[in-house]
Amino acid sequence: MIRLIVVEPEGSYNVGFIARLVKNFEVDEFYLVNPKCKMEEAINFSAQGRDILEKKALIVSAFDDAIKDLDIKIATSSIADNEGDLLRRSIKPWEIGKFISDDKKIGLIFGRESVGLTREEIFKSDFLLHIPGNPAYPVLNLSHAVSIVLYEVYKLRTSSIKNENISNESIKLMELYSRKIIDSLKRSEGDEYMYVVLKRVLLKGVSSEIEAKTIVRLLRKIYVKISIAEGKKVDEIE
Amino acid sequence: MIRLIVVEPEGSYNVGFIARLVKNFEVDEFYLVNPKCKMEEAINFSAQGRDILEKKALIVSAFDDAIKDLDIKIATSSIADNEGDLLRRSIKPWEIGKFISDDKKIGLIFGRESVGLTREEIFKSDFLLHIPGNPAYPVLNLSHAVSIVLYEVYKLRTSSIKNENISNESIKLMELYSRKIIDSLKRSEGDEYMYVVLKRVLLKGVSSEIEAKTIVRLLRKIYVKISIAEGKKVDEIE
Repeated sequence: MIRLIVVEPEGSYNVGFIARLVKNFEVDEFYLVNPKCKMEEAINFSAQGRDILEKKALIVSAFDDAIKDLDIKIATSSIADNEGDLLRRSIKPWEIGKFISDDKKIGLIFGRESVGLTREEIFKSDFLLHIPGNPAYPVLNLSHAVSIVLYEVYKLRTSSIKNENISNESIKLMELYSRKIIDSLKRSEGDEYMYVVLKRVLLKGVSSEIEAKTIVRLLRKIYVKISIAEGKKVDEIE
Repeated sequence: MIRLIVVEPEGSYNVGFIARLVKNFEVDEFYLVNPKCKMEEAINFSAQGRDILEKKALIVSAFDDAIKDLDIKIATSSIADNEGDLLRRSIKPWEIGKFISDDKKIGLIFGRESVGLTREEIFKSDFLLHIPGNPAYPVLNLSHAVSIVLYEVYKLRTSSIKNENISNESIKLMELYSRKIIDSLKRSEGDEYMYVVLKRVLLKGVSSEIEAKTIVRLLRKIYVKISIAEGKKVDEIE
């Protein structure tokens, strides 16, 4: 299941083009967070995607309302991989194949034309996707970035070669124990990036359910040991 | 060498967006055949692709002038693969990789928003490229079709560069601390598989040196904590 989320779009032409793309690439859900443009003008650019704007698009007022219930949240940015900024380490459009499956709710999140997504919005997401382009000017127009990502996802969804599926439960448990371990170890706010990196590396690195289950078992063992080191009693450890 | 050719475009916004894409994806040559829209309005949609319109775009009056000197001519269409129509048998965007090389002049040819390319224009080309999409409505807006094809070509042209290098030292340290952690935790020989899985997942999952270094730092922290839990003194921990 693919949910496209566009946060505070400013250009009505982009919203219209994106509605058309939602139809072109059979996106399941389409959320607009607090659009800053005139929706009635968007219709002029939607062609046969008009019914998407009239019936399918869901307008919500807050980012958190748009991302709830998602299994994997993929933020996007035209700015990525700056030296030393861990939050902006990116994955590429063709690398998200392993997360796409019928039983997973995937959110593809695009930001404002002017300033993109905020760091807080990226932090709430699992990955930052970046479309590679001219290093001197990689900044795509919003709806064109959407078209490329939706095209890649459509290709991955309809291709016969699919990656083995990782269960939602294993994904949740990897996140949960990564969270608990980092909470036990962290000394400063800077250490919070260790959580971002650990979660991403594990999600990227596991390529089968049996690997995911082994990682969960290992993370749990580590967490229990660390809790003991901190003086917790065994029956206090969830 | 990639030449983008747009035949009789009707919407100035599309020409503007395409100029921007020419810059985003470093297209070598940009030809417009007999544009039907106001070029000065196109500039409003070109962002930093403005200089492409002003300096790079070459306006010619005939299709044949645009395709001359090309080694491979790839026409595009949203209508393809109709039963029995050999001319419209299509190739997919990711299948053109084999034609792309520095010593070949490749033409990517896009038609009018309203009626696409004529059969004669397709006939003069070597291939017909079609972007797969919703069978009920595969018709992309012109500039969005251009963005997807230019993205695929860019990806194919730069694919040899990809994959950032992880240092041998980080690889060794990830292995070392994975080894130490598992040795501390393992209860039986069966647990040895946790080492194999952890090492592989980390090696598969890290995609930059900064991620690898963060993982090493985290593994070391975990190892120190576990050692303390086992009653080792801090100065005994290597």
